[in-house]
Amino acid sequence: MDMFDDVQTAAVDNGVNVEALISAREALTEAPEAARFRWRSTCTWVNGTHSRSTVEEYFGLGADQKHRTEFTFDADHPELFASEDNGATPVEFVLVGLGACLTAGIAAVAQHRKIQLRSVTATIEGGMDLQGILGIDNEVRNGFDGIKVSFKVDADATPEEIRALVAQSQKRSAVFDVVTNPTNVTVEVN
Amino acid sequence: MDMFDDVQTAAVDNGVNVEALISAREALTEAPEAARFRWRSTCTWVNGTHSRSTVEEYFGLGADQKHRTEFTFDADHPELFASEDNGATPVEFVLVGLGACLTAGIAAVAQHRKIQLRSVTATIEGGMDLQGILGIDNEVRNGFDGIKVSFKVDADATPEEIRALVAQSQKRSAVFDVVTNPTNVTVEVN
Repeated sequence: MDMFDDVQTAAVDNGVNVEALISAREALTEAPEAARFRWRSTCTWVNGTHSRSTVEEYFGLGADQKHRTEFTFDADHPELFASEDNGATPVEFVLVGLGACLTAGIAAVAQHRKIQLRSVTATIEGGMDLQGILGIDNEVRNGFDGIKVSFKVDADATPEEIRALVAQSQKRSAVFDVVTNPTNVTVEVN
Repeated sequence: MDMFDDVQTAAVDNGVNVEALISAREALTEAPEAARFRWRSTCTWVNGTHSRSTVEEYFGLGADQKHRTEFTFDADHPELFASEDNGATPVEFVLVGLGACLTAGIAAVAQHRKIQLRSVTATIEGGMDLQGILGIDNEVRNGFDGIKVSFKVDADATPEEIRALVAQSQKRSAVFDVVTNPTNVTVEVN
């Protein structure tokens, strides 16, 4: 490694520990059953369309795991729907997850490619025709008719490198996959 | 309406204004362009895999709308992934949205069917094989390999009526549709 490499490496810090991620990938290649995770949320009805969800425990590396703290989320419908607007709507939580997933991916890929990020912002917008959920027109789906994500990235890189960063994040994004491809959901009543 | 009807109607209050929802359905049947909504989130990178998203404005009924207040969400990866765990993971936000959507639907349908709810809780669990997002095995998807939702509903209704409630909520749930069916997502860099 020459001095130039040294200086460049030291200069790039997006706060992502890429070495740890590469070690994790090596470890999980050897022990694939440890790669099986289960993420969990519990939701409790409060009143009307208002619910409170918590996220704390998950399963991974063959054992029960916990976040550092419990995260709590109020969800509700807005006043426009004769609700009390005690929280974001359920569909907005999906947009939050999508934006956060792509943004975290951009930081991780940038670190790996030794690109210093200065700022990343995204607007995530999902269109929805309420004729679906209101049962007015059975041809109209309940969910989004499409989602548009617009990134602004300020980084020590060419526009082409930045586009490649975003494309790689998209390629490895869990939430992008969840939204763009079907997932089997079973709903039980106990 | 006889006295029995009267008493039964008065007794059921799940906090959902079904009359307003029925009026909205009638109004939007007459003016379908007003039913076109756009939901929005903005995401700002903080550091590493930590981002902060806000939800405040949306578009609907032909005009810009606002929630009563701005909702803010920190997302991050857990310490297990060498991150700081400053918030729930992006995929957990999707589980929160799914549970909240189905739960709000249950309350609305129950009110419409004059079923008094006492409590509703749900556990939402999504399995994920990290060999996908870590790029170990290209045959493994990045997202969930399946989601299981388990409801416990205490209500003045038979087990059959409760199962029918949950089934109707699922049928009209926006997030259930988003997760189980593909949505087109375009990602732009500006």
